[in-house]
Amino acid sequence: MHEVRRQGYLTAVVAALAVLLAIFLAPIATFAQEALPSWNDGKAKSDIVAFVNKVTTHGGDGYVAPEDRVAVFDNDGTLWSEQPFYFQLGFTFDRVKTLAPAHPEWKSQEPFKSVLKGDMAGLAKSGEKGLVDMVAATHSGMTTAEFEKIVTDWFATAQHPKTHRPYNEMTFQPMVELLNYLRANGFKTYIVSGGGVEFMRPMTEKMYGIPPEQVIGSTAVTKYALQGDVPVLMRQGKINFINDGPGKPVGINQVIGRRPIFVAGNSDGDYEMLRWVMGGNSPHFAMIVHHTDAAREYAYDRKSSFGKLDKALDEAALRNWLVVDMKSDWKKIYPFDN
Amino acid sequence: MHEVRRQGYLTAVVAALAVLLAIFLAPIATFAQEALPSWNDGKAKSDIVAFVNKVTTHGGDGYVAPEDRVAVFDNDGTLWSEQPFYFQLGFTFDRVKTLAPAHPEWKSQEPFKSVLKGDMAGLAKSGEKGLVDMVAATHSGMTTAEFEKIVTDWFATAQHPKTHRPYNEMTFQPMVELLNYLRANGFKTYIVSGGGVEFMRPMTEKMYGIPPEQVIGSTAVTKYALQGDVPVLMRQGKINFINDGPGKPVGINQVIGRRPIFVAGNSDGDYEMLRWVMGGNSPHFAMIVHHTDAAREYAYDRKSSFGKLDKALDEAALRNWLVVDMKSDWKKIYPFDN
Repeated sequence: MHEVRRQGYLTAVVAALAVLLAIFLAPIATFAQEALPSWNDGKAKSDIVAFVNKVTTHGGDGYVAPEDRVAVFDNDGTLWSEQPFYFQLGFTFDRVKTLAPAHPEWKSQEPFKSVLKGDMAGLAKSGEKGLVDMVAATHSGMTTAEFEKIVTDWFATAQHPKTHRPYNEMTFQPMVELLNYLRANGFKTYIVSGGGVEFMRPMTEKMYGIPPEQVIGSTAVTKYALQGDVPVLMRQGKINFINDGPGKPVGINQVIGRRPIFVAGNSDGDYEMLRWVMGGNSPHFAMIVHHTDAAREYAYDRKSSFGKLDKALDEAALRNWLVVDMKSDWKKIYPFDN
Repeated sequence: MHEVRRQGYLTAVVAALAVLLAIFLAPIATFAQEALPSWNDGKAKSDIVAFVNKVTTHGGDGYVAPEDRVAVFDNDGTLWSEQPFYFQLGFTFDRVKTLAPAHPEWKSQEPFKSVLKGDMAGLAKSGEKGLVDMVAATHSGMTTAEFEKIVTDWFATAQHPKTHRPYNEMTFQPMVELLNYLRANGFKTYIVSGGGVEFMRPMTEKMYGIPPEQVIGSTAVTKYALQGDVPVLMRQGKINFINDGPGKPVGINQVIGRRPIFVAGNSDGDYEMLRWVMGGNSPHFAMIVHHTDAAREYAYDRKSSFGKLDKALDEAALRNWLVVDMKSDWKKIYPFDN
C-alpha cells in the first residue's frame, strides 16, 4: 500500500517535470544557429537552419514529428576525407602487407602483387573486381569480434599519408556540428556508406556520436558457427551487399523502413539516395559537399578516382539540392585546423 | 546578446530539471513489478523482474548502461499466435486467391493448385520450396509503398479462422506488458522474426510500440527504379535473406551491431539466437514461451508444423533459459480475454 502510494506520487512529479521540460525545450531550436560555428554565414548555413526551423515548428505547415526526422549521411568525402584513397582501402593495403608472409602466392598474383610493390597504377588495372577480391581476402576468415579488434588496433596506429594524423581525426568539423545540430532538434542521424559496416562501427560513436545501430554499410556474408561450445559469427570471403549507388535506398529501406527527410552526400554514389529522399511526401532537404579547397583539403569532382561528382552536380540546381562549397562555406575543415 | 543570455538561462533550467528527473526516476524500477499485471506470481515473473532490477541498479555488479540494454523478441508464437498457421501464410493464401484470375496456370500448378482448392495436405507436399515460391510470387512485382498498402488493407479485413478476430489483435497480452516494462527500464526492444520485414512493419508500432527501424525480418530482393521521374523501390520475386535459425544472429549483427542482453523465443528457429545472446559478456537473460494451453490458445511443441520446440526445450535447463508455461504463468493470453 505504502509502495503503491509512493509510486503514484512519483509518477505525478515526473509528469509535471516532463511538461516543464517540454515547455522550456521548445524555443531552443530558434537559437541553435549558434550550433554551427564552423559554417560561414551565407546561403548554405541559412538554408539548413531554415529547413530545421520549418520541420520543428509546432503548428507550422512543414512540421514533422520527431520519429520521422531521419537524417542520412554518406561517410567517405561527406563526414570525413576520402583522399588520396578511401581510408578503408588504406586499411586493406595494410592488411595485405600484414597477411603477406602467410600468402607467398600474392607476390605474383594481382592485385596483391601491385599493393606489395606500392604500385598504384598496377593496382588500378585490376579495376573494381580486383578491389573486391582484395577486400574479401583480407576482411574474412575471422569472427566479427576479432575483426572489430583488428579495425580498432589499426585506427590506433595508422596515419594519413598527407596529414600524418590518425584517420579517425580527419572528420569534417562543420559536418560533425551539423550532426549535433540535427540531433539537438530531434533528428535521428544515420550513416549510409559504401564502406563496410563493421569497418565503421568501432569508430562512429566517438567520431560522430552515431551508435552502431545507426550505421548502414556494405556487408560480408557472415555465418553463425560454434567454436567448441561458444557461438560466433564468422566473416566469409564473399560480399553480401554493396551499399552504394542504387543500393543506398535499398539499404535505407531494409534497415530503417522509413524515408529520411534529410540527406547529405558528395558523389554520384549518393545520386540515388538523394533522389529517394527528395521523392518523399514530407518536407525534405538534400545537400552535396563539393570538394573545392585544394589548400586546406583537396579539390576534385568530375574526374576523380574516389568520390567522382558528375551527374549529381549537373542535376543539383534542377532538383534543388544544396551544393556546399567547402572553400567558401566552411571556416575550418578538420577539428585540428586553426 | 539578449538571445545568447536567454539560451544560457534555458540550458541551466533544462539541466536542473534533467537532474531532478534522474533522481526521481531511479527508484521507479523497484515498483515496476506492477507493470506485469497479466503474469501470475511465480518463478517466471520474479526471474524477469530480478534480472531487470540487476541491470538497472546503479553501482551494482550487474549494471548495464542503457545503450546496451537491447532486447530481441521473436514474433510468431512469441508475441502473437502462430496457429493454425503463420499469419503471413494466411496473408499469402489470400494473395493467391486475389491474384488467381490473372494466373490461370495456377489451377494446375503446385503449390497454388492446393491453396486454391483449400487442400492443406496437398500444400504440405510442396514443402519449404513450395512455400518460398508462393511467397515470392505473391509478394513481388509492386513497389514497397504498394505492398505496404496491400498489407495494411489485409489486416483491416482478414479474420483468424478460430477466434474470428483481426490477426493484429491476437497478440499475447503478457508479452506486450513485458515489452512496455523493458522499455520503461531503458531497454530498446526489437523484433527478430522469420516473417517478412515489410509484412510486419505496417503493424508493429500499434501492436507492440515497436517502430519500423526496430523490426528485423526476412527480406525480398528489392531494386531502385524510376517510374517516369519518380524513384521507387520494386520488390523482386526472389528472397534476399531468411532471418530464421542461424540467420537470426546474423540479422541481429547486421542491423543492430550490438549483442542483445535479453531474448525471447518459442521455437527451434530461435535456438541460435538464444545461444548468441547467452554467449555475451554482459549479464544476459533468455526465455522461451512454451505453448501449453489448449483451452485458451494451443498446446504444441515437439511435433508441430509451425513453431516446433524440441532442441531448445531439451537444452533449456542446461543453459539456464527460462521456460514460461503459458497455462500456469499467464493470467490472460489475448488482450480481449476476460
